[in-house]
Amino acid sequence: MLYTQVRLREFTQQVFISCGMPLEDAILAADVLLSADLRGIDSHGVARLSGYVRLQEAGRANMHAKHRVIHETPSTATIDADEGLGLVVAPKAMELAIEKASQVGTGWVAIQNSNHFGIAGYHAMKALPHDMIGISMTNASPLVAPTFSKERMLGTNPICIAFPSGEQIPFVVDMATSNAANGKLEIAQQLNKEIPLGWVQTKDGADSTNANELKSGGALLPLGGHKGYGLGAAVDILSAVLSGANYGPWVPPFVAFLNPLENLPGNGIGHFLGAMRVDAFRPKSEFKLHMDLWIQRFKESQRIDPNQEVLIPGEPEYRMQKIREIEGIPLNENVEKDLQELAAKLGLKL
Amino acid sequence: MLYTQVRLREFTQQVFISCGMPLEDAILAADVLLSADLRGIDSHGVARLSGYVRLQEAGRANMHAKHRVIHETPSTATIDADEGLGLVVAPKAMELAIEKASQVGTGWVAIQNSNHFGIAGYHAMKALPHDMIGISMTNASPLVAPTFSKERMLGTNPICIAFPSGEQIPFVVDMATSNAANGKLEIAQQLNKEIPLGWVQTKDGADSTNANELKSGGALLPLGGHKGYGLGAAVDILSAVLSGANYGPWVPPFVAFLNPLENLPGNGIGHFLGAMRVDAFRPKSEFKLHMDLWIQRFKESQRIDPNQEVLIPGEPEYRMQKIREIEGIPLNENVEKDLQELAAKLGLKL
Repeated sequence: MLYTQVRLREFTQQVFISCGMPLEDAILAADVLLSADLRGIDSHGVARLSGYVRLQEAGRANMHAKHRVIHETPSTATIDADEGLGLVVAPKAMELAIEKASQVGTGWVAIQNSNHFGIAGYHAMKALPHDMIGISMTNASPLVAPTFSKERMLGTNPICIAFPSGEQIPFVVDMATSNAANGKLEIAQQLNKEIPLGWVQTKDGADSTNANELKSGGALLPLGGHKGYGLGAAVDILSAVLSGANYGPWVPPFVAFLNPLENLPGNGIGHFLGAMRVDAFRPKSEFKLHMDLWIQRFKESQRIDPNQEVLIPGEPEYRMQKIREIEGIPLNENVEKDLQELAAKLGLKL
Repeated sequence: MLYTQVRLREFTQQVFISCGMPLEDAILAADVLLSADLRGIDSHGVARLSGYVRLQEAGRANMHAKHRVIHETPSTATIDADEGLGLVVAPKAMELAIEKASQVGTGWVAIQNSNHFGIAGYHAMKALPHDMIGISMTNASPLVAPTFSKERMLGTNPICIAFPSGEQIPFVVDMATSNAANGKLEIAQQLNKEIPLGWVQTKDGADSTNANELKSGGALLPLGGHKGYGLGAAVDILSAVLSGANYGPWVPPFVAFLNPLENLPGNGIGHFLGAMRVDAFRPKSEFKLHMDLWIQRFKESQRIDPNQEVLIPGEPEYRMQKIREIEGIPLNENVEKDLQELAAKLGLKL
């Protein structure tokens, strides 16, 4: 069934407000979730809403968190998110990064003591209207095994880089550092379909095409093998070793029914954000001119299949947003049921 | 045959000096190449030496280049490399990034009008003794096809991130953004062996296990599919659209027998370098303590094969360096012959 974004946005805000979140923060958190739904990243939108509420019920998310800067230089800051949602603190931290970039060319903010921040793309794209390059990344609950290991040690640790352009749509690469995201496995499970080799391994570390492997102690595999392990690990270190958050196997699980490990080395989960003024490197107009030419040239590169155009990173999501802003956001039965239950529990109307 | 690093280093310096490079720059350029040979990245060491000389002979490399800063903010700079070798300008640019990081927390330098800079790892690792995180990347001659395209549009565009540690060895991820580097194809060609699916495609964009595909108009494939396309593209944009260098299909070829295209949109090839003080985010001692714990925990993660330990990115190269510093550097017949010919041409002794 299709829902207008206005309807889902208002409902999401109401849910967060019911949980004790200040209005301003609820508006922000809803905007991050709706951005995922509009862009077609359905796994990170309102489908997660009840998960955030359960985290609060488990005493693991502070809905009226007050983040604070605990360390600072002209181009950097470290923020303690006060156990709040990354949905709220990450956009605010990105504003600080943008402010620092306005002052000294670039701004970089590491965040500890946080929770899930939604899609990485939302935060990086906040830099675009300022003619800045945006960067965002986060660590996440361990699901990915390092090369030669059968243990889940890393999250799908996404990284996003967004570049402003002139006439063309912006370039936004927003990618997990695993071969497949968990959402893709879930779809294969529902359809009872085999998955490609390279997505998962069994609990003993053997190759598998079984989408249910993760439920039996298996692990996701890093993007393209050992390189993806290195990349996902770098995201983990920037997000958590640098900020003072938990890293590797100690990252607290997003799902409330799993408890965090004991004797944690840090606080909550971690994010790392950055903003770079393009005119800290060359005049803005020159950058945009060449960015447009870059995009045009890549879109015109020779096709394998004449009917399948070559796309720019972020283009499918950009197009989806244009469609869903008009036609509405489709929710599948499970998500609809989940939101109805949430509405009933909180005395709200979807 | 095994060569001591001293012997190869002196020879390499002599070659660059014969080409008109100032002594100080020749020492630096030789150090970058020897670092690759010591670390076991044989494709990027003295094996490339004659290639740099041929670039000069073709009028495409300035051996007595004087780079200059053409744009600057407290945390950023853009450098025109004066058609010099990246081997020389990149370490100097990294020093500027480190200086800026000392002042304002982080430093970022984009470089245009350059040539091949050797291994990305050398430049990023320069940050480590300063207790800084080092980042380096470069674009390169087009060999990789974007997703859905059969055209070579991107280089293998490597990216390196190096993190300092305390007692443990440093974490250095230094990776091409293609599934396979060209060097691996060359080895398969020499052994007449099939390569894994996913490394290359034919000139029509079909899957192939033929290592010679690249010679018949085929292309390398991006790391893990469309994500690697996005990542390699981001490296291209940071290195070149931001700096004013050439990008995409316009990046001049490293090999001197191929001519650059006409009507280029920029100058030479481009690099992007960064340095971040760890104590711009949290106290240095805390960072190192947790970095050590991160490394220990990952090394202890459960093995698939009890005889195959789990490695930290950069560990194989670190170990190789320890061995080769003592035992010497092995050169294969082709490289030896190439260097002998170079020695004869320049009136030097290998």
